[in-house]
Parts: sequence; structure tokens; C-alpha cells
Amino acid sequence: MKYFEDFRLGEVSVLGPLVVDEAEVLEYGRKYDPQPFHTDKAAAAQSHFGGLIASGWHTCAMQMRLMVEEMTRDQVAGMGSPGLESCRWLKPVRLGDRLTCRTEVIDARPSASKPYGILKRRFELSNQDGEVVMRLVGLGLVAKRPEARA
Amino acid sequence: MKYFEDFRLGEVSVLGPLVVDEAEVLEYGRKYDPQPFHTDKAAAAQSHFGGLIASGWHTCAMQMRLMVEEMTRDQVAGMGSPGLESCRWLKPVRLGDRLTCRTEVIDARPSASKPYGILKRRFELSNQDGEVVMRLVGLGLVAKRPEARA
Repeated sequence: MKYFEDFRLGEVSVLGPLVVDEAEVLEYGRKYDPQPFHTDKAAAAQSHFGGLIASGWHTCAMQMRLMVEEMTRDQVAGMGSPGLESCRWLKPVRLGDRLTCRTEVIDARPSASKPYGILKRRFELSNQDGEVVMRLVGLGLVAKRPEARA
Repeated sequence: MKYFEDFRLGEVSVLGPLVVDEAEVLEYGRKYDPQPFHTDKAAAAQSHFGGLIASGWHTCAMQMRLMVEEMTRDQVAGMGSPGLESCRWLKPVRLGDRLTCRTEVIDARPSASKPYGILKRRFELSNQDGEVVMRLVGLGLVAKRPEARA
């Protein structure tokens, strides 16, 4: 298992790539974010986006999937998340985009009273042209090593 | 249509309710956030959450659906979102929870150069026991009235 103490400040990882799938963009949009530029190719082409784009929330979800794949591979002792400090959707995410995520641990502090530490990580999701399409700072709880728990 | 100029600072709306659906929690978890406490009832019961909970990202998605229902009903001239200022997942969201969302416009400023204004709204999602389960500050772009556009 990878515990809280095994993360280092400044630790970088690169996740992905993943390719944005048209059927998934439409399915997500229709279910959770049914604005025309997420659900209807013809209407999206007429919008200021000039074509179908992924919901920003869907982009977050795709990034989360990449992160959980990493957590599973590294056997991270994850205990959930208290939330995000910020999230910016900087560029439209389009069908067929090939996305890669760079993550960096920017803060790591053990809880004084709880059996976990709090990691703060910056996530930058970029497309095949090197454009950053989303930037996010998220918090995660990771269990301390068994011998370090109160 | 409801344009940027039609929103007032301090404007409050109440969205929902919606009931958290088990099949949807499992489907979302397996697709985007496959941690055991989102995907497996037995494993979730053994976790520190004591049972299956919705992914925080799924909670965001459910809230977005409520917001788009309101936008559609009010014919809001939405042009997408640049992102979030913050998001906190404060309490677990469990199967069968009945969620209501209170929104408040906390800032509204027209772009000097673009055909839209930027709304900042606070969203508070509460469960049937009156507990706030998520608090989020989001940004939204809304088109100015046609006669106000450059």
C-alpha cells in the first residue's frame, strides 16, 4: 500500500492519455448537463463553441478516472476527498481530443487527530496540441501507515 | 429569454428535490470513480463511510442537472462556465437521500469586451435532515441582452 507518508511534496505524475469519446460526451451531457453544446451536434455547431464539447463536469469525471487508475495501480490508501480549492475550464474539450494529466503534490499535512493526512494536488489536463484545457487544485485524504495511527 | 441583466445580486432560488438513486450511484462510480465505497456495497459497508456513498463528482453532476433544469425552465441565455472558485464535500451522500439546492447570486459583472456577463453563484446542497452535504461557488457566463452587445 502507498500511505500518506509515502507521498513527497513536489511529487509529479503524468496520467493518461485518454481520448474523448463522442458517445460518452453525448451520454454524459444528456444525463447531467443537457445544454445544447453538450447534447446536439447541429445546435452545437451553431453555438459560440462551433461544435460539440464535453461538459466541464464530464472533463472532471474523466480526470478522476485517470486518477483512480493511478491510485489502483499504486495501491494508494485513499479515504475520499473533502473537496476542491479551485477548478478552471480554460479551453473547450472536443471529440477525439487526446488528454494527458500532469499532477503535482503541492501540500501534504498529517491530521493531528485523525488516521489520515491531507494531500493538496494540482492537476493540469492538456490536449494533443499542448493546450491546458483544465486546471484544478484538489484535496485528498490518504491513510497514515498503520503504525502511525493513534 | 433570461439575460445577464435580468439576474440580481442576492437573487436566491431553490432547486430540487432529487432522490439519490442506487443504480445511478453504482453506474457513475464504476464508470468514473471506481473506489470501493462508490462501487461495491459490501466493501463500502466495511469502509470508514459505513456504506455506499455517491462520488463527490456525481453529486456535482446531480446538482448541475438541477441547475440546467432551472436554466431551461427560465430560458437562461447560458454560454458555459469558466469554472469553480471552490467546492467542499461536507457530508457523505447516501442512497435514497433527498437533496435540495439553495443558490444565491453573490457577484454579477458584465464583461467589458465580450457579449456576456459573469455570474458568481453559491450553491448549497442539503439532505432530508437539513445537513449541508456540499457547498460550491461556481462561475457562469450569461449572454447580455441583444441590444447591449457590442
